[in-house]
Order: sequence, then C-alpha cells, then structure tokens
Amino acid sequence: MTPTTNSRRRFLQTAGGATALAIAGCLDGLSNDGEQNAQGTDTETDEEGEPAAVESVDVDRIARDPTAIPDPVDWNEPREHDVTVRTERVTAEIEPGVAFEYMTFEGQVPGPMLRVRRGDRVNLTFEVPDDLNVTNHNMDFHAVYGPGADATTISPGDDPAQLSFSAEYPGVFIYHCAIPNMDQHISAGMFGSILVEPEDGLPEVDREFYLGQHEIYTDGDVGEEGHHGFDFDAMLAEQPTYVVFNGQAYGFTEDGVGPMHAEVGETARVYFANGGPNLLSSWHPIGNVWSRFYRDGGFLTEPDRNIETAPVAPGTTAAAEMEFPVPGPVKIVDHALTRAARRGALAVIDVDGEADPEIYDPNP
Amino acid sequence: MTPTTNSRRRFLQTAGGATALAIAGCLDGLSNDGEQNAQGTDTETDEEGEPAAVESVDVDRIARDPTAIPDPVDWNEPREHDVTVRTERVTAEIEPGVAFEYMTFEGQVPGPMLRVRRGDRVNLTFEVPDDLNVTNHNMDFHAVYGPGADATTISPGDDPAQLSFSAEYPGVFIYHCAIPNMDQHISAGMFGSILVEPEDGLPEVDREFYLGQHEIYTDGDVGEEGHHGFDFDAMLAEQPTYVVFNGQAYGFTEDGVGPMHAEVGETARVYFANGGPNLLSSWHPIGNVWSRFYRDGGFLTEPDRNIETAPVAPGTTAAAEMEFPVPGPVKIVDHALTRAARRGALAVIDVDGEADPEIYDPNP
Amino acid sequence: MTPTTNSRRRFLQTAGGATALAIAGCLDGLSNDGEQNAQGTDTETDEEGEPAAVESVDVDRIARDPTAIPDPVDWNEPREHDVTVRTERVTAEIEPGVAFEYMTFEGQVPGPMLRVRRGDRVNLTFEVPDDLNVTNHNMDFHAVYGPGADATTISPGDDPAQLSFSAEYPGVFIYHCAIPNMDQHISAGMFGSILVEPEDGLPEVDREFYLGQHEIYTDGDVGEEGHHGFDFDAMLAEQPTYVVFNGQAYGFTEDGVGPMHAEVGETARVYFANGGPNLLSSWHPIGNVWSRFYRDGGFLTEPDRNIETAPVAPGTTAAAEMEFPVPGPVKIVDHALTRAARRGALAVIDVDGEADPEIYDPNP
Repeated sequence: MTPTTNSRRRFLQTAGGATALAIAGCLDGLSNDGEQNAQGTDTETDEEGEPAAVESVDVDRIARDPTAIPDPVDWNEPREHDVTVRTERVTAEIEPGVAFEYMTFEGQVPGPMLRVRRGDRVNLTFEVPDDLNVTNHNMDFHAVYGPGADATTISPGDDPAQLSFSAEYPGVFIYHCAIPNMDQHISAGMFGSILVEPEDGLPEVDREFYLGQHEIYTDGDVGEEGHHGFDFDAMLAEQPTYVVFNGQAYGFTEDGVGPMHAEVGETARVYFANGGPNLLSSWHPIGNVWSRFYRDGGFLTEPDRNIETAPVAPGTTAAAEMEFPVPGPVKIVDHALTRAARRGALAVIDVDGEADPEIYDPNP
Repeated sequence: MTPTTNSRRRFLQTAGGATALAIAGCLDGLSNDGEQNAQGTDTETDEEGEPAAVESVDVDRIARDPTAIPDPVDWNEPREHDVTVRTERVTAEIEPGVAFEYMTFEGQVPGPMLRVRRGDRVNLTFEVPDDLNVTNHNMDFHAVYGPGADATTISPGDDPAQLSFSAEYPGVFIYHCAIPNMDQHISAGMFGSILVEPEDGLPEVDREFYLGQHEIYTDGDVGEEGHHGFDFDAMLAEQPTYVVFNGQAYGFTEDGVGPMHAEVGETARVYFANGGPNLLSSWHPIGNVWSRFYRDGGFLTEPDRNIETAPVAPGTTAAAEMEFPVPGPVKIVDHALTRAARRGALAVIDVDGEADPEIYDPNP
Repeated sequence: MTPTTNSRRRFLQTAGGATALAIAGCLDGLSNDGEQNAQGTDTETDEEGEPAAVESVDVDRIARDPTAIPDPVDWNEPREHDVTVRTERVTAEIEPGVAFEYMTFEGQVPGPMLRVRRGDRVNLTFEVPDDLNVTNHNMDFHAVYGPGADATTISPGDDPAQLSFSAEYPGVFIYHCAIPNMDQHISAGMFGSILVEPEDGLPEVDREFYLGQHEIYTDGDVGEEGHHGFDFDAMLAEQPTYVVFNGQAYGFTEDGVGPMHAEVGETARVYFANGGPNLLSSWHPIGNVWSRFYRDGGFLTEPDRNIETAPVAPGTTAAAEMEFPVPGPVKIVDHALTRAARRGALAVIDVDGEADPEIYDPNP
C-alpha cells in the first residue's frame, strides 16, 4: 500500500492540481508556530515526503469500548452528577503500523458517554494536565444552554475549570473541544456524547452500543506505514485520510480489536456520534435496518421506522434501534462507501444464534 | 471542451495540489492487477493523457426506462416471487461521444425494480456469466435481514447463487453489488431498488417513475470525447466526472433519449435510488414541489409535505409524490447545482395540458 | 495569511494533485468568452498568481440586515402582492481587505425576503438594468408551480419580465437565478427566500432573523488580500474559498458589521436559506438548541424538537425556533467546522439579560 516517491511524481505530471489546497502556504506559515509543530504538522515528514518510522505508542488501543455506557436512568426525581473529565494526549495506531498523536477526553475516542435524566444537574470539573498538552482545550456540550466552551477554556496546568448546568432538554448530544482550532482538535479525537433521557426514559433494549465517527486528516496516505502528522491542508479541502469509528480504522473487526456481539432475538440501541469535523455520515447497518431511527438525536418526535441509511450531520449524535432476527455479521458503515471500503469506516456486530430460514435462507 | 496537455501543465504550475490524491501510487499498484486493467483503470489512457478513441458501444442506451416498474401490489396474502438477476458488462455512452464500460444488473442502469408486498417471499437466482465479467459480484439488498451479499458472491461462470428471503419490513430500498471493490462496482452502475409495499399498499397515483442517481469517476474530463476509463483516484477524492440519472448524463432530455411525460391534473410518485457511491443528493423538482416526501424511503411515518429539496443519502432509495396543476417542463435535479448544470444530474418530465393562469401566469 | 509563490511550488513538489481539477483546460476555454471575463474569471489575477489590488468597493456592506423581514401575516383572506425585484452587480468586501464582484437581487445578499399567505397572489416585476449586468438573469421560485425561471429570463436593459402566480402550498422556500450558469450566479449571491405562511399562520415569536448561507468560489486563498475573481475550477471541485452568512465572512460578529441581538426570556425564529450552490449545511447554534426545527422548510408536519444540528441541503430554506433562557453569545455555524473556523460561516446573536445559575452557572 506504500506508494513510492516516483509514483507520486508521475501522478503529478499527469493528473492536475486542486485550488482548494492553495492555502498550503498559509498553513506552512502556521506550522512555524510552536503549537502546530508540537501537534506534528510537519515535523514527522522527512524531506522525501515519507512518514517517519512509527514511534512507540502510548496505548494499545485508542478505540473506546462501545459497550462502556452508563446504566439506563432508573430514578424519577432530578439528581446531581459530579463529573470530572481530563484531557490526554496519546500516540496510538489508527490501524496496524500507522501511528498518530491523538488528543482525547480520557485517553480514548470518543470521549466517555455521560448519561443523565432531563432536569438533572451536572457539575463538571474539566482538567488539562501539563504533560504533553501544549494547547488550550475546553468542552462545548450541545446539551447546554449557555456559552459553556468559553467558560471551560483552560491552558495546560491551569486549575481545573468548573461548570454547573441543568440538562434542560432531552436528546442525545455531541460534546467537543471548541477552541479556535476546534476542527483540528476534533479530528485529533476530542468529541464524545451526553445522553439526556426524557423524563419517561427510553424503550428498554437488550444491548446498547456507543460509536463515534470522525475524520483524521494526516500527511500520509491511507495505509502508509509510519507516524502520520496532522495535515491542515487536507482538512481545509475536507479530504480526510481516514474515516473511522471510535478512532480506529476497522477497529471493531477481526483486523482490529474484534467485533461487537449480540444474540439472535435481542434488540439493541446504537448511539452514534458524528464528530466530523466536516463530513456527513450516511449511517447504514449491512444485513439489517434501523427499525427505529431517532433522527438527529431527538427523542420527543416519534422515531422513523425501517430506515436503511440515516443521514447524520457532523456535530450530531443520533440514535437508532435494531432487531437481530437472524445470525451473522451486521456491518455498520458510512454508506459513502469509499470511506467504508478504503478509509476505515466499518464496524462489525457478530450476531450469534439459531438460523431462521423462514426469514433468511442462504441455501434454499 | 478538451483541454490540451499544455493547459493542464500550466494549471499545475499555478494552482497547487491535493493530498487526497496522494494514494495514486497505491492505486497504480492495483492497476497492474488483471481485474483492474479489464475495468479500464489505465489501459484506455495513452501516454499523453488523452482518452482513447471511442470504441464500438454494445448498447444504444444505458438508461433504463423510468416507467419500467412492476404493477402495484393487488394481492392481500403473502406471495412467493421467483426472481432471476444476471450481471452484464456493457460499453455505452455516458453522453454523446463519451463511452464507458458499465457493470450492470440486467444490462441497464439502475438495475430492474423489484416490487413485493411486506411478508412476501423472494427466491433469488443470481447469475454472473463468463463473457466479459472478470470480477466477482453479489447482491446486497437493504430489504433483507441477514448477510445476503456474502451469500450471493460468485465468480464469472460459477453456478448461479440462490438466496431466499422474506421481506420483513416495508419501505423502498437500494440493492447493490457489495464485493470489496463495491464503490467501484456501484460507480460502474451496479445498483437498483426493491420496493416492499406496506400491507395496506401505497396511495394510488396516475404515474410512477424510477430514477437512480450515481457518480461516475473517470480518467477523462466531463464532456471530453473518447472512451473513459475508471479512475480510482477520483473516487478516493469523491470528485466524480459525471453525476447522472439512470446512468446517462442528461439522459431524459432532448439531448438524450428524450423527456418523461405526464398530463396536467395527474399525480405521480417517483422512486429515487441514490446509488452513490459517495455523494448525498439534494433532490429537487424545478417548477414543482414534493407534495409528499417519504423520507429515506420509509412508509410507516406520515410523509413530509411540500418539501422543496429532499436530502437523499447515498445508499438510500427515497420516494416522493407530486401533482401537475400546470403544463411545462418539470426538471428533476440534484440541487448541488454544479452537478445539474455541468455533470449531468438533470432529467425532464414534460407536462402537457391546459394552462391555468389562476395558478401560474407567465404573461399577466 | 498570504502564501508566497514559492510556498505553493514547494507544496506541489511534495503533495500530489487532484483529477477533479483537470477540467481546468475546459474552463480556460470558457474564460476567453466575453461573459466570463466580465465576471472576472481570470482578469483579476496577474501572472504571478497574486490577486490584483482591491478596487474601490460600491457598497459598505453586502450583508443584508437579518431583521429586514416583512411583518407576520395578519390577514385572513387571499391578498394580492405587487413585487418588484431588480438585479444589481456590486463590488464589496467578503471580509476586510478581500473584494469580490457580487451579483445580487436588490443590492445585498441574500435577496429580500418575501412574505405571503398561502393562497395569496404575487405579481412579480423583474428588472435587469443595463449598467454592469452583462449576463441574463431570471428568478426560479421554489414556491411556484410552473417554469418560472424560463418565463422571467431577460437580458440587461430588456423590458422588465412579468410573472403572476398563486402561492399554492405553504412553507419557506428558496428563490434563485437559474440561467444555465446558475451555480455561478448563486455563488455570486443570487438567492433569497419567500415565506408562504400556512392559513393559520406561524407561532408567535419575539424576534425573527433571516440568514442565508452560500459558498464563494474565488481564485484567491481565504484571507488573501486583494480583489478575488470567480473560479470555475474551484466550483467544479465543490471546494469553496469562503462559506458565508449573508454574503460576508464573519459578518455578524465584532469583526464585521456586528452581532445580532436578543434578550433573555425571548423566543426567536430563524429563516435559514442555504443557497449553496453545492454544499449541505450542518446548521447549529452554539450555546443553544433548535427547540423546534421545521425540517426542509415544511410547516405542515409537527416540527422536530431539540435538534442540535439540522442538516439543510443546498436549495432549501429551513426554519427553526429557539429560546434564550440565559445571556451570552449564541453562535450560529455550519457545523462542518472547518467552514466555521476558517471560511466565514459563523454569526453571533448577543443575548442580554440576567444570568440564571439554576440553568447555567459558569462560576459554581
């Protein structure tokens, strides 16, 4: 999968160029700034344009466990939640052999899911440690009335930021870092979800999954081994190198940390955060259907039924329920299929159980 | 419309280049593979970068007749349907003078529309003949619970694949080829629709139309005469050469096979398959409105009313109804208008009948 | 922010090129046409690729006042409206120091909002004066049954076009210029909205705002000082230089003409026209939520509740209501965040009034 410098040169001589990238010069300027260098804008690329060798990684996996979700709300009165979120910069593999320096909430992607009931209060403590964090961070919760991002902006080593808010409206929402370079910080991994259950709760399901799609803009080619730096030019052109679920290309497949699991006869709800920063996801379960789709993450409208492909705009957490009447892999993809086939946006739920040829018979 | 090699070089010297295409080397590698060459990845381009002369075409038109739709469901009990679908590789014109080697279901684009009632059984026989088909194919039906694509994957000349399934949920759905190079196969034409009517059926209309939008990624420029090969680089960048309805640029206009037709006072329903593989369509009827829009192809939710532009994600068949109170052309477009104005995504319904100046008076 | 020619060359040597722009040659051809030159396709760029110096601008601001909206409908019987719309070509600043020659309806962007009641009649007079208008124009109203664009097409200095129509269906709709180069004309500013209130009217709100997003494709880099010409290549690649609200980058911020205003305790409805021509907007209010979202501008379906990010396809005017329970800036963005952070798609509503720490407490 690694192109040679020669093949790239040859391509240049025959294929033309894009005006969208003409801002390169501007960003070259930016890359002389201390912040950008620390984020690997250009220092990881040697003069021949090859990525540097993979440096040691900090963590074995960047992909947050998709079943790491707080239990459903089981209380009927407003409750108070003390929540601490800490940023962490970690180097990890996007796919085997391809390293990248992520910025995260709590060490993995997406950030931890928060779960409250409408009317509950959240007391947030936000920490940016002084280790490798060379840039400001903050948290913009789409579940909050008020300029929360401004209120939580701190520098590395600052005293923790405090914010207290009431979850005034139900739904499932994105949170993300929203400093001026917010698109870069999200592309590096800084987004997650907060679920605000309606007073009456959500329908009971057997399983819940938490997935986050986002784009990674790097200075390498997809699949090119080595350490990839961040590429502002690619982000300006909205031309990502990777489009991934939970920070990792093909993470929940046999090539990654392994598939998710469910049993025939069960139901599941998937919370799907599209961090972006830029691309809409055409969210589809191969071999299944979204039997109930909570469009744009709203819970007060009757969900849409039997939706094959659900558009999820960047900056949205949507939710959908599915049934598993037959066994076999269900493959969740961005149905902008080049992203699923070539850039990483595919995850598998292995469904175990007894076949039902009345519904699906592969050997009639 | 044919750029010279010089003008392309001149452009290169002034406009910059895009990282998204840096994967060219990787795909150069692919193009040495027998399968890719057979699909025209690079063999049709001579050394100066000009498309080869148009070879003889196999068929006069690639565009499937938009009125070739099975009759509405008129049965009340579950029924069994034996369906045979055969792949066919054909060279045809995208627009006059521009040839392309399509992969199809049954010789045209989109594949034939299938129509059943919820609860019906479909016994599919899928054939990949050994003529020019040098690659595997299969069929992934979004109307099926179970990994249908895996079950139907066969090689050219293999015994036909068999799959039997029950249409468990109503809606109108995409089917498409889903081998690993699925994005390329869809871009070459391999998608269609299956309509699963609810038990109670659909509202009666006077006419039905079946349109499929998709992107064609070629190694030529839009409008450049000659035989265009497939271009993986363009697909990776999600930068198509053509965006077309039923496989043909401006196919249903006077410049193509001619417009569709309707009469003043009639109603129509349009089934609109967005094969993609990558782009969302902003589906709009110029001079009209979607009076009832079945969002994302769902039939169990009350349709949206009077929608000017309907977002249809890739991997979705949507449906919408319209009325024709006045005569004149209704132009169906992707309202990402550069695609309609320059890349082919425009089709005309000519509406004949008496003017009604109470509604629309162009000469007041 | 101004790249040197050298930095652009250096980028070219390392980053590869995009096939999407290979159409450059074709457009070079176009640019020899009189019409295109008049629109600045290439004449403003000198040989080194630097934009020309800023010429004198015609108007101080291109951004239409977002509160310039006709009063709500207060009549119960069909009414007749005589409306005159005149095109005007003006040079103005996209952002300070960056000039562009806009084409407009009535001198600003978006065009004036029209407001009628369902069943009302509109008698349109459309004028294209002979001053600097060197191209045809027309008006395609998405609120009209019938080929209105064809009926209103006139050349500069022609007698005004007349069109009379009945507003047959409620909703809020785009209008735009729809001559063959419609994508260019929209990108230059030619779009606006017509609001057709349902017979029963719309919910009362304290304030209404009218915003229009669109993309500007120029031959300069974002932020590069000087006069930018129009760039067909960038438009074909759907790679805009600017993505703006009401024609101006960051227009409704302290860096532009200043923020919009509201008071704590009020409600507002925003009419949001996405002219495109090509990009879907992921429409989000930072620090707030769309408490009622009229999806795709439809008024006959119950609005979606508490939507964080609302997808709005190009060629759509959507509407949404919001509440202001706490003070502080509400920032309206396209949540494809690179556009908000770097290309201009951000506007501020300053909300004044008393804090409510029960809801939002930045100093707990």
